[in-house]
Amino acid sequence: MKLDHLQNILIVGLGLLGGSYAMALKKQGYRVNGIARRQETVDYALAHGMIDRGTTEIDPELIGQADLVVFALYPHIFIDWIKQNQQYFKSGAILTDVTGVKGGVVDVIQSLLREDVEFIAAHPMAGRETCGIENSSDEIFKGANYIVVPTEKNTPDAIELCRDLGEKLGFCRVAELSVDMHDRMIAFLSQLTHCIAVTLMCCNNTPDLEYYTGDSFRDLTRIARINDEMWSELFLDNRHALLPEMDRFRREFDRLYDLIQSGDREGIRKMMRCSTERRQRFDKKE
Amino acid sequence: MKLDHLQNILIVGLGLLGGSYAMALKKQGYRVNGIARRQETVDYALAHGMIDRGTTEIDPELIGQADLVVFALYPHIFIDWIKQNQQYFKSGAILTDVTGVKGGVVDVIQSLLREDVEFIAAHPMAGRETCGIENSSDEIFKGANYIVVPTEKNTPDAIELCRDLGEKLGFCRVAELSVDMHDRMIAFLSQLTHCIAVTLMCCNNTPDLEYYTGDSFRDLTRIARINDEMWSELFLDNRHALLPEMDRFRREFDRLYDLIQSGDREGIRKMMRCSTERRQRFDKKE
Repeated sequence: MKLDHLQNILIVGLGLLGGSYAMALKKQGYRVNGIARRQETVDYALAHGMIDRGTTEIDPELIGQADLVVFALYPHIFIDWIKQNQQYFKSGAILTDVTGVKGGVVDVIQSLLREDVEFIAAHPMAGRETCGIENSSDEIFKGANYIVVPTEKNTPDAIELCRDLGEKLGFCRVAELSVDMHDRMIAFLSQLTHCIAVTLMCCNNTPDLEYYTGDSFRDLTRIARINDEMWSELFLDNRHALLPEMDRFRREFDRLYDLIQSGDREGIRKMMRCSTERRQRFDKKE
Repeated sequence: MKLDHLQNILIVGLGLLGGSYAMALKKQGYRVNGIARRQETVDYALAHGMIDRGTTEIDPELIGQADLVVFALYPHIFIDWIKQNQQYFKSGAILTDVTGVKGGVVDVIQSLLREDVEFIAAHPMAGRETCGIENSSDEIFKGANYIVVPTEKNTPDAIELCRDLGEKLGFCRVAELSVDMHDRMIAFLSQLTHCIAVTLMCCNNTPDLEYYTGDSFRDLTRIARINDEMWSELFLDNRHALLPEMDRFRREFDRLYDLIQSGDREGIRKMMRCSTERRQRFDKKE
């Protein structure tokens, strides 16, 4: 099933990601409605042509019209929302999400969901260090990765639709991972890097560092400006995967420490050549 | 003393930084000559209007004409060059550099240098993950910091000239640090961040990571593409300052690990709020 066959898309949660989804899908000509917590958010989305209709209410009619519902909410709010409002979904509706951790979310939602509605999980790898609809932009999907996270409960049709959504949104690459593999990848690629950035920022409060810094420190700490409510939840929800990745990093960092301490220049250069070679694969494709 | 009073600038070493200096100074209308190791580099600089004259030789006439000589060489090559060729400097010439570590360089050069020539150390905080003259550009100085590193042997005139050079090159902020403070700052802001990037890249070789990554991992590893010859020398030359900064980072990282392991959400959020608040000071001013 392709996105073109759908009449009506509903986005629940119009923050940075929900707003960017709305913008991208409206530009593609889809009918897009939105539900947000605050009226100012709905007003902003309407004023900027990001949605056709919006509300802060649980509107059974708006929910019942949607062929595809995208949830862009914090994990625990997402689960509560489904529990309380799933009776309003149209029969046959497809649900998807943007949640950063899948374990404890996908299985819970799929277990409690009505039989005639399907949830296919996805994770757009396109965050930013800012939040809120006023920072949203479909530009953030350019060159970015989109991960579909199917389970054995998902149908080929829903998986195809979810992949097509990623492509239509403008993502560069669409991949598939199991829930477990997704959470391990994200622990390393996203959560560990946020741990490092926060640590770097917190561990040294020497005055005037900003007058001496170069771009390397700026790069490594861009994401140290962090939404503490959301990220503390993601860290803890995924701690069984995150802690081993932090251990992995610590062991390698200790190895480099020892090489420097013992003056093993060739050992240091070997690590640097390894990192230089591997890094090439990660260049962004536009 | 201001740069405008000079007739003739010589740049020794036309790599990424030397080339960028040449480009910026030529655009300002100065007469700029260059010495490089390879003839292709000289040809490139001449063809792109970055220098007026260039050579791969130790040309006593070219060296003897220079009022200001900028050394953009690896630390140990810089010291050898001065030892072998200082007899050719014009009396009253000012020397400066771009070397990333100052301890073991500034004191050595200032001790062995002729009395009628002055060396004032500087560190442009404007590197890149690429090297070579073909990647040089005066754009890299925009919004960047420039650190002058005077000692008690330096005259106010030379310090003023060196600060003026930083401003004329287009740096956003010019600061002054002692040799010891410079090396400690750089250990934290530049070398530690390179250690982290290299470690991140080396510690996990799971296939296909590049299909799942977001920008945070890309940002934290941009500098993992590293010139191993230069950086291993910088790490080891500065290891007495680098190892304590690595320790500082490890202690704070361990603290975050413990907070996550024990499920202390408020402790995690407190660190995140601290990092968010501090990070604001580091935004680049264009």
